[in-house]
Amino acid sequence: MPQTFVIAQGGGPTAVINQTLAGIVLEARRRHPGAKVLGARHGVRGIRDGDYVDLSDIPEEQLRRIAATPSAALGSTRDKPDAAYCDVVLSGLKKVGADAFVYIGGNDTAGTQQILTDASGGGMAFVHAPKTIDNDLMENDHTPGFISAAEFVAGAFLSIDLDFRALPGIYVGIVMGRHAGFLTAAAAAWRDEDSDGPHLLYVPERAFSVPRFVSDIKETMGRYGRCVVAISEGVSTADGRSLVESLVSPDRLERDAHGNVKLSGSDLNRALEQALAEGLPGTRARVDALGYVPRGYVGAVNHTDAQEAFDAGVFAVEVAERGGGSVALQEDDGKTVIRQVALSDVAGKTRHMPDDFMLTDVNHIAQPGLDYLKRLVPGKFPIGRPFV
Amino acid sequence: MPQTFVIAQGGGPTAVINQTLAGIVLEARRRHPGAKVLGARHGVRGIRDGDYVDLSDIPEEQLRRIAATPSAALGSTRDKPDAAYCDVVLSGLKKVGADAFVYIGGNDTAGTQQILTDASGGGMAFVHAPKTIDNDLMENDHTPGFISAAEFVAGAFLSIDLDFRALPGIYVGIVMGRHAGFLTAAAAAWRDEDSDGPHLLYVPERAFSVPRFVSDIKETMGRYGRCVVAISEGVSTADGRSLVESLVSPDRLERDAHGNVKLSGSDLNRALEQALAEGLPGTRARVDALGYVPRGYVGAVNHTDAQEAFDAGVFAVEVAERGGGSVALQEDDGKTVIRQVALSDVAGKTRHMPDDFMLTDVNHIAQPGLDYLKRLVPGKFPIGRPFV
Repeated sequence: MPQTFVIAQGGGPTAVINQTLAGIVLEARRRHPGAKVLGARHGVRGIRDGDYVDLSDIPEEQLRRIAATPSAALGSTRDKPDAAYCDVVLSGLKKVGADAFVYIGGNDTAGTQQILTDASGGGMAFVHAPKTIDNDLMENDHTPGFISAAEFVAGAFLSIDLDFRALPGIYVGIVMGRHAGFLTAAAAAWRDEDSDGPHLLYVPERAFSVPRFVSDIKETMGRYGRCVVAISEGVSTADGRSLVESLVSPDRLERDAHGNVKLSGSDLNRALEQALAEGLPGTRARVDALGYVPRGYVGAVNHTDAQEAFDAGVFAVEVAERGGGSVALQEDDGKTVIRQVALSDVAGKTRHMPDDFMLTDVNHIAQPGLDYLKRLVPGKFPIGRPFV
Repeated sequence: MPQTFVIAQGGGPTAVINQTLAGIVLEARRRHPGAKVLGARHGVRGIRDGDYVDLSDIPEEQLRRIAATPSAALGSTRDKPDAAYCDVVLSGLKKVGADAFVYIGGNDTAGTQQILTDASGGGMAFVHAPKTIDNDLMENDHTPGFISAAEFVAGAFLSIDLDFRALPGIYVGIVMGRHAGFLTAAAAAWRDEDSDGPHLLYVPERAFSVPRFVSDIKETMGRYGRCVVAISEGVSTADGRSLVESLVSPDRLERDAHGNVKLSGSDLNRALEQALAEGLPGTRARVDALGYVPRGYVGAVNHTDAQEAFDAGVFAVEVAERGGGSVALQEDDGKTVIRQVALSDVAGKTRHMPDDFMLTDVNHIAQPGLDYLKRLVPGKFPIGRPFV
């Protein structure tokens, strides 16, 4: 039975990733009295550098307060360790006598756990606990962090649409999501009538074309006198290039440490603004990136999301006892159940929106997609219909 | 006694402007049974065009639901009528037999009411009911709409700071506000310790300089390893030009119908991104405009704000009976009281932050500013301190 747990958090923060942390710590202490529970600061980087916070004796009350606080309390990292980095991490884990390492994160994080499992030769349990606002983990119905972010996005677009009813024009809101459009689709979760925005959704699962974008908006302006658009930062043109790569000259593209093109930023905003200025001259238009607020806004922590994230952490301790694997939120007869799945089924893979979630002829959500979203983020703000 | 009321909403929407609308309608009907209450669509434009919705018999339940819904249910306008336009509006008001016109809006709206008062020659009551997230109306301690927007901004920056603790770098968030920095300052309302962001505030009341901006951020990065910045879209350089005018060539500047330079947009984002890329090369940096979400997010409608906005509407009916004027929220011994003030004291004027609200040597809030904000937006999300 594990006596020394190491826990870390990887990738982008969410509103509820600290619930998972608290779930792991409290369950590990409950099932293994006297166990040592170490939190590595900034993901695997903390293990590499021997930078830990001892969570063995932190009062439960303090942990519960941290659990209710968005973002990653241990710090996070974008490091995706290769084999050599993983060797250093393995040595670090052995140095502190770890029996189990639970890493909370997305598919890259699961990938790290897969590499560590393969390299360790046994004797240590590697567990992946799910987390991502992108909702793009295989084997999962949805992921901890998604519901809160989706609720924020749904509310933001409901609000923006009311704003643009009052002062008409074009609004384009850029939503996070490199490969999967779930969070962007959530912008439409709380629409009520046909005239309600967002009127158009552009997601990575559908090829993007600027001329089509402009003509879609023209048509919507003609019909409703305003147009509210939600677009994923990760939309790609038919040639497979991201929109920002299609629109910005190669020498001006910004990249992160992994060589990934920086999808959002003023270049994307400007390119979309210019397309609108040329295609619909003289029409009031605003392009904004929602940015980081949706993934951890203190005012939009969803209760179900928080509970599921906590429960995923609790279950991760059981998976550690079983020797390791990945924790998944699955759907069973309308209810969320937490199950163990193989790391290899999650690691490095991306779950896209099912094809039938989006209409084929119009850039908008289809009924199955709406049903899915309404199950996860039922409307919570009753709206009085405006007079315009 | 007025028997026909016309009501309109002007300028940017807020989270609670419909509370004021409901307050006026319900109070006018209560005090004047059988009165005709007309809502003009899209501000004075609706009066000009004879475009009204009859609010005389709308069920109270429906009005209450609309009151709780952000944005302007009657629609709004950016039209600032000149004398000729005002003549057309006066004729329109006479055509429907208006005894009183209540216009909900900011200082431009008060200006319209002043012109109409002067042009009408008596016989009709012109009332200005306050509304603005900018909090920049003279004679007011604060304005309906500000508290909700300030609470959103405080929560957004608290959340962003937690995010950047987890994944360090520079964040610059652009906040609405052309002439007054109250809403940007609200970003600091919920800071708890010195290391908490936002670490820097740039407001229109202080001259902005790019070199100073860069050196401020460098210093903060050296101290805390991250830097969260809140900046008003309306900051100006020492020569009095807005930042976007200072940074963007004149032929590329966008202007609205009134000739006002469009302050936000990708040009401003890009100019700030470039300043950071040059001044702090290789440092992760993100520049985002919070955009329209703060002014009407359904999830951040503050209860006190809603009640005060409703009460301001109720009081506006009394001001109409007294012959017209402006409604103001004032502070008396720590309590908010609603009083009548002269239109001329509000019309076309801008209230800036008192000089002692900001420090003089550092771009940050001073204790009197913080005390003011804490009175209006006391913290509401208890935070568990992160381990990083």
